[in-house]
Amino acid sequence: MSAFPFEIKARDGAARTGVLKTPRGDIRTPAFMPVGTAGTVKALTVEQVKDAGADIILGNTYHLMLRPGAERVARLGGLHKFMRWNGPILTDSGGFQVMSLSKIAKVTEESVTFQSHIDGSRHILSPERSIEIQADLLGSDIVMQLDECVAWPAEEARARQAMQLSARWGARSKAAFGARQAQNLFGIQQGSTTRALRRESADRLIETGFDGYAIGGLAVGEGHEAMTEVLDYAPAMLPDDRPRYLMGVGKPIDIVEAVARGVDMFDCVLPTRSGRHGQAWTRAGPVNLKNARFAEDDAPLDADIAVSNTYSKAYLHHLVKSDELLSQIILSWHNIALFQSLMAELRTAIAEGRLDAYRKAFKAAQAED
Amino acid sequence: MSAFPFEIKARDGAARTGVLKTPRGDIRTPAFMPVGTAGTVKALTVEQVKDAGADIILGNTYHLMLRPGAERVARLGGLHKFMRWNGPILTDSGGFQVMSLSKIAKVTEESVTFQSHIDGSRHILSPERSIEIQADLLGSDIVMQLDECVAWPAEEARARQAMQLSARWGARSKAAFGARQAQNLFGIQQGSTTRALRRESADRLIETGFDGYAIGGLAVGEGHEAMTEVLDYAPAMLPDDRPRYLMGVGKPIDIVEAVARGVDMFDCVLPTRSGRHGQAWTRAGPVNLKNARFAEDDAPLDADIAVSNTYSKAYLHHLVKSDELLSQIILSWHNIALFQSLMAELRTAIAEGRLDAYRKAFKAAQAED
Repeated sequence: MSAFPFEIKARDGAARTGVLKTPRGDIRTPAFMPVGTAGTVKALTVEQVKDAGADIILGNTYHLMLRPGAERVARLGGLHKFMRWNGPILTDSGGFQVMSLSKIAKVTEESVTFQSHIDGSRHILSPERSIEIQADLLGSDIVMQLDECVAWPAEEARARQAMQLSARWGARSKAAFGARQAQNLFGIQQGSTTRALRRESADRLIETGFDGYAIGGLAVGEGHEAMTEVLDYAPAMLPDDRPRYLMGVGKPIDIVEAVARGVDMFDCVLPTRSGRHGQAWTRAGPVNLKNARFAEDDAPLDADIAVSNTYSKAYLHHLVKSDELLSQIILSWHNIALFQSLMAELRTAIAEGRLDAYRKAFKAAQAED
Repeated sequence: MSAFPFEIKARDGAARTGVLKTPRGDIRTPAFMPVGTAGTVKALTVEQVKDAGADIILGNTYHLMLRPGAERVARLGGLHKFMRWNGPILTDSGGFQVMSLSKIAKVTEESVTFQSHIDGSRHILSPERSIEIQADLLGSDIVMQLDECVAWPAEEARARQAMQLSARWGARSKAAFGARQAQNLFGIQQGSTTRALRRESADRLIETGFDGYAIGGLAVGEGHEAMTEVLDYAPAMLPDDRPRYLMGVGKPIDIVEAVARGVDMFDCVLPTRSGRHGQAWTRAGPVNLKNARFAEDDAPLDADIAVSNTYSKAYLHHLVKSDELLSQIILSWHNIALFQSLMAELRTAIAEGRLDAYRKAFKAAQAED
């Protein structure tokens, strides 16, 4: 296995900024990965995703294995060719969606058996099958180990059991992944909100050895405060010289706090999901374009966001009120670009040694909910 | 009133190709106008509409007067600025949608009173109010007179009555329009499928005098054969030196037949409506992307359509099956571009004096429905 070069160019406290170099292109870190669940970042062309500033996108193994099917994607040339995205792709293992979307039939040491949420068909996902789907059939650049993510809150015994199963599945994932040169494998730390479990999880992952390390099992309902408490210690348990990826996070304020604590990569459906529901993200938080106060507001959402700054809020208000698809397109595009702009600001702030000031100003600018 | 220069560059039988020169840009004829009902060509940015090859788009007075309201559009700088389309816009009069979408309260010599299909609110549209909305408030480049379009089939007496009311409304529209320099006013021929009524309508329009002449009251259920029979005589009743516009048409095969009979302009929701329902137009007719035969078809819809030829049918099939917004976007875009490509082919065929051969080959290529 050959880990992608990860060049940390500057540090500011626990935070770092750098570049993860993949054969399909550089990923500037801290990085936000738009989510392309079913082979499309919802409502956007890949050209629009690129224009918004994204270096890498995420694909969902669970959705793609069910439809159109991983073998079909492979016959069509792999996920990059299928969806026309020629930059890097990270795929999740499918584990999280199996737990959250499908009807679980059985979780054993060997695998998880589940029913499709689309047609009720029965499927099996094991660490080895997840690697086969991600690495061989979809052709993902960054492959995630299969893990078990427990619901929050979890009894400590249950959280320990899932964390230990995840650790064993991590070792099996690594064995199945083998000595690939052009793809990387990330392990996933579990342990819910319990420090000792996070410690044990990190130690076992490091013993197995991965190309990067994800923090899983957060953003599952515990809230901003509980999540930042875990982030006070969890990232530092993971190797300093490899990328750290906080899965499924999050709101801009969550991202800022996580970056300050040493996280390098993020993914979340929030910008596109918000955009489909008439919600625009701004530097001060979300606004609902349906609100009548925008009806004659001739200003753009954000003068610095190039993909949306030629649209007036009045026009977007009209599109949302009229249920026009263009509102979903422009707001999804704007939100992705806003998130990418935030990441660029964080990278610059770290490089210039003023992340703490940036973070304080960012928090102060948040509007009341 | 100052009619836009209409330069006919070549003729082939009854067909003509040329350029209608407006202050906001040239319209190459025969021209197809994508429909931007509520201030957006559904599912597309104006940049995408332009990329597809459109010179002019159509806006619906009925929809815009109800939402966001014509006065509001005016306060926001007019329809071009509001929706970011800086090319020419033709607006319809609102009459057709009042008849087809709203609950009509009353049609009198003076005006039509109706209830909004959105909120039931009561509105009045008169020839003068329609001109005010289109020319003054929306700022349309090509303004249509208010007319009454009867349902098909219509008793001859009913069709005559509506045609004569439309003629009187045409004269009032012209008086209200006055001596505008940068905008044009088109009259609308009515008379259903009765030749004598079409003749009387044309004569009365010509007596009033317009900058262009539309053929209304077709594509309302009479079918391709009955429509082409009317088109065998109706266009020739209208002035040869001014643009002729067939309203609400249509399928590519309808457009080809109408162009051969001397029509210069078209509009239709078909390409975008089809695109939102998984249907792609090809030179051989429509195909339903949901069909399983496309599941592993790696070829594009049409290698010559630049906006869509990097997408495989297999990918579009997957997007349609998955109800992904991107399918509606790409198929709407493809369909508009296919229609524009057809218009370009028609213009070239006329310029090269081979329209009849083009028309025969086009008909022969149509797949069975």
